[in-house]
Amino acid sequence: MEFVRTGIDGFDGLFAKNGYPMGSSVLVLGGPGTGKSIFGLQYLYKGASLYGEPGIYVTLEETPKKVERNVSSFGWNLRKQIDDSRIVIMDATTPRIKEIDTDVIRAGLGIDNLISNLTEMIESNRAKRVVIDSLSVLAFTNADEFDTRTKLIRLAVSLSEMDVTTLVLSEARTNEIGTTEFPPETFLFDGVIWLMLDTNSQERRIAIRKMRGVKHVLGTFKFVIDDEGIRIKA
Amino acid sequence: MEFVRTGIDGFDGLFAKNGYPMGSSVLVLGGPGTGKSIFGLQYLYKGASLYGEPGIYVTLEETPKKVERNVSSFGWNLRKQIDDSRIVIMDATTPRIKEIDTDVIRAGLGIDNLISNLTEMIESNRAKRVVIDSLSVLAFTNADEFDTRTKLIRLAVSLSEMDVTTLVLSEARTNEIGTTEFPPETFLFDGVIWLMLDTNSQERRIAIRKMRGVKHVLGTFKFVIDDEGIRIKA
Amino acid sequence: MEFVRTGIDGFDGLFAKNGYPMGSSVLVLGGPGTGKSIFGLQYLYKGASLYGEPGIYVTLEETPKKVERNVSSFGWNLRKQIDDSRIVIMDATTPRIKEIDTDVIRAGLGIDNLISNLTEMIESNRAKRVVIDSLSVLAFTNADEFDTRTKLIRLAVSLSEMDVTTLVLSEARTNEIGTTEFPPETFLFDGVIWLMLDTNSQERRIAIRKMRGVKHVLGTFKFVIDDEGIRIKA
Amino acid sequence: MEFVRTGIDGFDGLFAKNGYPMGSSVLVLGGPGTGKSIFGLQYLYKGASLYGEPGIYVTLEETPKKVERNVSSFGWNLRKQIDDSRIVIMDATTPRIKEIDTDVIRAGLGIDNLISNLTEMIESNRAKRVVIDSLSVLAFTNADEFDTRTKLIRLAVSLSEMDVTTLVLSEARTNEIGTTEFPPETFLFDGVIWLMLDTNSQERRIAIRKMRGVKHVLGTFKFVIDDEGIRIKA
Amino acid sequence: MEFVRTGIDGFDGLFAKNGYPMGSSVLVLGGPGTGKSIFGLQYLYKGASLYGEPGIYVTLEETPKKVERNVSSFGWNLRKQIDDSRIVIMDATTPRIKEIDTDVIRAGLGIDNLISNLTEMIESNRAKRVVIDSLSVLAFTNADEFDTRTKLIRLAVSLSEMDVTTLVLSEARTNEIGTTEFPPETFLFDGVIWLMLDTNSQERRIAIRKMRGVKHVLGTFKFVIDDEGIRIKA
Amino acid sequence: MEFVRTGIDGFDGLFAKNGYPMGSSVLVLGGPGTGKSIFGLQYLYKGASLYGEPGIYVTLEETPKKVERNVSSFGWNLRKQIDDSRIVIMDATTPRIKEIDTDVIRAGLGIDNLISNLTEMIESNRAKRVVIDSLSVLAFTNADEFDTRTKLIRLAVSLSEMDVTTLVLSEARTNEIGTTEFPPETFLFDGVIWLMLDTNSQERRIAIRKMRGVKHVLGTFKFVIDDEGIRIKA
Repeated sequence: MEFVRTGIDGFDGLFAKNGYPMGSSVLVLGGPGTGKSIFGLQYLYKGASLYGEPGIYVTLEETPKKVERNVSSFGWNLRKQIDDSRIVIMDATTPRIKEIDTDVIRAGLGIDNLISNLTEMIESNRAKRVVIDSLSVLAFTNADEFDTRTKLIRLAVSLSEMDVTTLVLSEARTNEIGTTEFPPETFLFDGVIWLMLDTNSQERRIAIRKMRGVKHVLGTFKFVIDDEGIRIKA
Repeated sequence: MEFVRTGIDGFDGLFAKNGYPMGSSVLVLGGPGTGKSIFGLQYLYKGASLYGEPGIYVTLEETPKKVERNVSSFGWNLRKQIDDSRIVIMDATTPRIKEIDTDVIRAGLGIDNLISNLTEMIESNRAKRVVIDSLSVLAFTNADEFDTRTKLIRLAVSLSEMDVTTLVLSEARTNEIGTTEFPPETFLFDGVIWLMLDTNSQERRIAIRKMRGVKHVLGTFKFVIDDEGIRIKA
Repeated sequence: MEFVRTGIDGFDGLFAKNGYPMGSSVLVLGGPGTGKSIFGLQYLYKGASLYGEPGIYVTLEETPKKVERNVSSFGWNLRKQIDDSRIVIMDATTPRIKEIDTDVIRAGLGIDNLISNLTEMIESNRAKRVVIDSLSVLAFTNADEFDTRTKLIRLAVSLSEMDVTTLVLSEARTNEIGTTEFPPETFLFDGVIWLMLDTNSQERRIAIRKMRGVKHVLGTFKFVIDDEGIRIKA
Repeated sequence: MEFVRTGIDGFDGLFAKNGYPMGSSVLVLGGPGTGKSIFGLQYLYKGASLYGEPGIYVTLEETPKKVERNVSSFGWNLRKQIDDSRIVIMDATTPRIKEIDTDVIRAGLGIDNLISNLTEMIESNRAKRVVIDSLSVLAFTNADEFDTRTKLIRLAVSLSEMDVTTLVLSEARTNEIGTTEFPPETFLFDGVIWLMLDTNSQERRIAIRKMRGVKHVLGTFKFVIDDEGIRIKA
Repeated sequence: MEFVRTGIDGFDGLFAKNGYPMGSSVLVLGGPGTGKSIFGLQYLYKGASLYGEPGIYVTLEETPKKVERNVSSFGWNLRKQIDDSRIVIMDATTPRIKEIDTDVIRAGLGIDNLISNLTEMIESNRAKRVVIDSLSVLAFTNADEFDTRTKLIRLAVSLSEMDVTTLVLSEARTNEIGTTEFPPETFLFDGVIWLMLDTNSQERRIAIRKMRGVKHVLGTFKFVIDDEGIRIKA
Repeated sequence: MEFVRTGIDGFDGLFAKNGYPMGSSVLVLGGPGTGKSIFGLQYLYKGASLYGEPGIYVTLEETPKKVERNVSSFGWNLRKQIDDSRIVIMDATTPRIKEIDTDVIRAGLGIDNLISNLTEMIESNRAKRVVIDSLSVLAFTNADEFDTRTKLIRLAVSLSEMDVTTLVLSEARTNEIGTTEFPPETFLFDGVIWLMLDTNSQERRIAIRKMRGVKHVLGTFKFVIDDEGIRIKA
């Protein structure tokens, strides 16, 4: 079994194998402002720049331009990776608003379409890493909870059959979600990573809540977001 | 990337760039009486009087007359800004009650209409700042939760495409909302600002919970509302 | 801007202007037995006897006779004010039970009817103060939550257009409601006053949670109900 | 105004007038085993034996035989009061099970029938006191929450028009209900009395949460159930 | 009035009369693994072996064989009581699965059938004690909450008319249920007994929460399950 | 009565009989990452390798390949057991996604099909141990809660009639579920085992919450997951 290295400072060392099993689909849970998108982009950037693994960032919320802008303050050369096609920001936001009407929206996002587009792009790009930002859109734009769950299953199963290692970002509604409370979909994923920002103590913390197939350190760890992105103080 | 300065005493210094990215849509969350409307108007007033940036205050709750009256005790010359068209208070309250019947209300506010009116006014007024007061009306007047969410998406996407920096005010149902609990729509915004009034400790507090594209200070800060409006004690 | 004085002992001094803006609609929130009705009647009684401002008490729960009886133990001469038409107790209870059948009740109280009757009475009586007792009836007798909200909006907008200063009483379901938790309709009002009775500490407390257009003291204050009614120990 | 004396040891002295206004409808809230039924029967027994006021116990749960048996361990001569028609135990349980089918039950208990039977019996018996045991049946046997509320309103209004002082018993779902949390129907009643049994401290406590038209002591008081029934340790 | 003795070590002495009124229907509430079934079988076994009172165990969950097996580790001779027909384990599980289809299950268990079978068996067996294991099945197998409640009423009323003393077992969803929180059906029963297992303190506790017609000790008591079954340490 | 030995280090000794009754169906409850799947596979692996009892792992979530991979870091020779048909990983995942359309999924998984396949495989394989991973899928893929419950009953009853000892894994939504709170289906099982991971204290804990027919140690116990799998520190 091979293990993926995220390249995020201080994170890979939390696993017995200095990384977690390649091919895993991992849920990244955290409230607003906890750094989920930065975590995802840093994972792709390090994959492309350090390990030569191309990646795809699927944005369901923001335009690719904004995604790029949001990390422009870091000392990364993300633009170069994009220009060299080692990182692709795949825009999955547009059809939601511009090209389909309300009834189509009510029926939820076209997950099968997304899956087939993503599959194609993975192949053409030989991508090894994928980030999906975010699950929250899926639930928010879907009037039918059961349909949302069905789509989640399709997505999870599809991801597990692609030859990529995926982070799926999801916005938590409370600080407890990911440590003592869990959304119902966690069982669909091979791993769960939890991010937290405590406004009172002014601390950011991260924990590996679950990771199949590899031993990992228990407990939560402080991290900071500085000029190079996320850095874990293990 | 350019950064907006709110001009609110002690607030801009909480960001590494002395402000946050221009073009952001920021959610301002707080319970009743926490000062959301004052924060919004002060942002417009300072923008117009200090930085020469025209602004629009979209009121979905109160008549423009009441909006103006509510800040009349401060030592601002808001009237002059209005007379000079540097600040416009756009009345989006009337149709809700006067011109449409109950079934139309049941179908919710006409968000597309609001968006097109707002777009037009931004252009004609060369506005750079917008405040929407408030999201609460949208949910309160809408029998269909999914429809409310669809409208929120339309609004959020539209705002992100206009060349303005926006504050969207939203009334929180508990003091925790914005720090340890979050409404489902937060992921639609680039930033989240939290206002709180603790009746027991007699303190007002503010925190930046999330702001994409710029480093900011963590933690909560006391603030007061005095004769000049909001002043943060950082 | 003019400011209303409630005449309630120790209350008006909590505002920078010794009162709050005339024309405001203020929500008075408190659990059972916290003194909401006494607060409302005392506001009318003081208005009529000290400031010469006629008032209307709209009772949706109890018969006018019981309303009067409930404050008979205080050293007020309420009867005289009623006889001189300076205070009117408007009975909005009867139609609910006696003259309409269950299906009509299911459709909720006739808010438009109430508003038109109230408007007429305000004009004929030159009333400056109104108390509505209580919002709880509106929700309790209405099977359709959205319809209740629509009626609340109609009522709130109508009150804001009448030339009166209004207290709207509402029974809270927990002690927290009004300080750390809020009902969804608070944003419709210019102010929120909170009343509390703590059976353990045997204390009654009051707080101004929100008041637009005037500075007020933060914090909660003890009060007693003695032979003259409510008296705040500021 | 006249004041009713319950005759329950140590209870009447908690009111400024040694009792509360005659004609009141009072809600008695408490969890299972807190002594609500004993409180109700003792109120009737004392009324009949000490003050010559006939009473009616409306039982919606148990057979009259069981109601009587439940207080047989006390040193009261309840049987004599029943034989002399000073206390009547009115059986409102039978139709619920025996004479009507499921669809009728689904439509809820026949409250109008109950009200007319009760009115007749009050007149024929010259009753001054009524106990209704209990509201819980009304909600439990009713599939339609709105219908339950409508019936509650009918009952409350009817009671307020009869020339009797009534206790309405209601089973609380938690120990907090009646002190810090309240059911939505409390506003329909003139008073709220709260009973509690704390299994940990092995204490029974009582409090007057609300009573219109009379001053009362705040705070909670221990009570015991001994051979003479309820006795409050004020 | 006669009083039933459960024969459970240390339990009967918690009542002033060394037992509670014969003919009572008592709810036994406790989470999984708290010993409800053992309490029920021990009550029947002691009734049959010590007091010569035949009993019926109505099992809605498990096969009679498993019911018997579950207490096989205790030093009881339950088999002999069954062979002598002093204890009957009545199987009410089979029809639920084997002989009826899903739509019939959706319509809920045939409570009238159960009642008539039970009545017949009580008569033929001259049973004085009944245990129903458990209410949880009734709610779990019923899609319609109102129908479940109607059935509960039928069952409770029927039990109160049979000349037996009954324990009705019910699985609680939290440790609090039975002490500070209560299910809505408690008012249907003459008594409530609460069982608890605290995994942290490694203690089992029992309390009498309610018992009509007899004084009982308040407070909770430790108990153990040893080779003779349940033994209370009063 | 015979007793099953799980073979999990330090676990069997928690029971008076060094194991629990053969033929039991036991619910294993725990949040994500608590080790439920490892517990299940270790139970099968030890059964096959130490006690010569063949076993079946029914996977409703993951492909058999991933199931095997997830425990590949332990020093077990699981592959040999599979090759020798002493352990079978039965794939119950495929039909959910590949062969049936959305409407069929809406109707839920084909539980009768699963039961008949499992029965057949138990017979052909002479299996004595079964693990079902997991109940969570059943609820997640089913739009109709009542239908989920009906299927759970069918499954539980079927398992109790097969001559096997079964572990049914279920993902808990909070850390409390299994100790102080319980899902409604626990009463269907003979036993409940609870697994917990506390990210703060960095501890894993296990408890036997319920086990019919055998005495067991109360309390929670620390455990670790090391190179040999789960090891309890009793």
